Amino acid sequence: MKILITNDDGIYAEGIYKLACSLKRMGNIYVVAPDRQRSATGHAITMHEPLRAEKIKFFDKDFDAWAVSGTPTDCVKLAIEALVKEKIDIVFSGINKGPNLGTDVLYSGTVSAAIEGAILGYPAVAVSLADFKNVNYDVAAEFCCIVADIISKNPLPPDTLLNINIPNCKKENIKGVDVTTLGVRKYKNSFIERIDPRGQSYYWLGGEVIDEKNNEGTDIYSIKNNCISITPIHFDLTKFDLIEQVKKWNIQIK
Amino acid sequence: MKILITNDDGIYAEGIYKLACSLKRMGNIYVVAPDRQRSATGHAITMHEPLRAEKIKFFDKDFDAWAVSGTPTDCVKLAIEALVKEKIDIVFSGINKGPNLGTDVLYSGTVSAAIEGAILGYPAVAVSLADFKNVNYDVAAEFCCIVADIISKNPLPPDTLLNINIPNCKKENIKGVDVTTLGVRKYKNSFIERIDPRGQSYYWLGGEVIDEKNNEGTDIYSIKNNCISITPIHFDLTKFDLIEQVKKWNIQIK
Repeated sequence: MKILITNDDGIYAEGIYKLACSLKRMGNIYVVAPDRQRSATGHAITMHEPLRAEKIKFFDKDFDAWAVSGTPTDCVKLAIEALVKEKIDIVFSGINKGPNLGTDVLYSGTVSAAIEGAILGYPAVAVSLADFKNVNYDVAAEFCCIVADIISKNPLPPDTLLNINIPNCKKENIKGVDVTTLGVRKYKNSFIERIDPRGQSYYWLGGEVIDEKNNEGTDIYSIKNNCISITPIHFDLTKFDLIEQVKKWNIQIK
Repeated sequence: MKILITNDDGIYAEGIYKLACSLKRMGNIYVVAPDRQRSATGHAITMHEPLRAEKIKFFDKDFDAWAVSGTPTDCVKLAIEALVKEKIDIVFSGINKGPNLGTDVLYSGTVSAAIEGAILGYPAVAVSLADFKNVNYDVAAEFCCIVADIISKNPLPPDTLLNINIPNCKKENIKGVDVTTLGVRKYKNSFIERIDPRGQSYYWLGGEVIDEKNNEGTDIYSIKNNCISITPIHFDLTKFDLIEQVKKWNIQIK
């Protein structure tokens, strides 16, 4: 199995190291990841400047690894179309430090990288550890091998991928593995205004999560209850069931 | 009607000017847009540095207008949550120079800004002129008034928006207005490798569109046939019909 690994926390993040080391036992590892923190870059690509891809020593390992000056989506495109000469079997993105749940997946570089893998026709998985503090990636990294093994035997349909969130706890404390929908994440007090030493204002994006009702069956509910969530994802944004309604408006260009 | 206008080509682009001037006759205009070209930024948000919002003179108009140092998504968030004190009725993003069709909407800052409007609970429309050369925004700008009027009378359901592409031609040459699905856009030869004066390689994202079969009913087909395409969009990436199949895999954490 030839496994392409990327992330959005940057190639020197602990999560991608743990993921690569764990998946090593499943096959050959190719790491192509941003040269720095690129969280919340969504599905951005770099069109107005060129990309650099530097072959690097990946920690203490001899995996083929490139640090790329672009976004997670750039990394997957560049890996598959230019850097990695072998035919990739699966794309893993992660392990992200922090959850990627519900509506937030739209902003996530981790999930977007996996979406790009699926767009290019490869099985793809995004993996996030649902915590920011005292993180331990070992359980999540081990679970990725289980997932890689299952996907190799049960191919995903075209244009789909999996978004996985894993609680930050010991294996024995994980209560189960749920297949979920994306829940709803909303924020309040998103911006904090500050004044610089020259009297000019600027804004920090902040915001607290509003505790929306997220029922059983959503990824947010599962993580709250210490279960792993696996959400099947697609990327066709067409709202099919609105087409007939909009047709009835009979919009004309007068 | 209080109309928030943004784009991804930057606040000094011709397309946003034409859009704002045209929509003026529908109500009050608030322009909050990136201070520079931010195409292809997808749904990126700015978390690791603060945002600046400079109140500017918008060409020869007296609209309230702010140039923001962030992405199109940042602009919509910041406008609604901090800058514009009035309650907005609708968000327009555009008029983009170049099409936003099919799979490409994932990369589009124009569409992502409108998606952010919908996430925040506002009716939202993304508008693109389907050409890069000899662009004339007049027909598209006029059509936006028709759309604004129709949406004010026929509310969009929550969590949905419209993605509109308009041919770059005279009004009499537009063959109709189609309500469409997103087609499939794929590219080949995406990266062009170059060597810098110091012998180091770098990569430009390029690529030609592969002429995929895009049947009648898709946005790509409509634009090819000189029709306006209106695609209803949502942003729930859950692949619902895959949930039962993944459940059958019975993934356990051993």
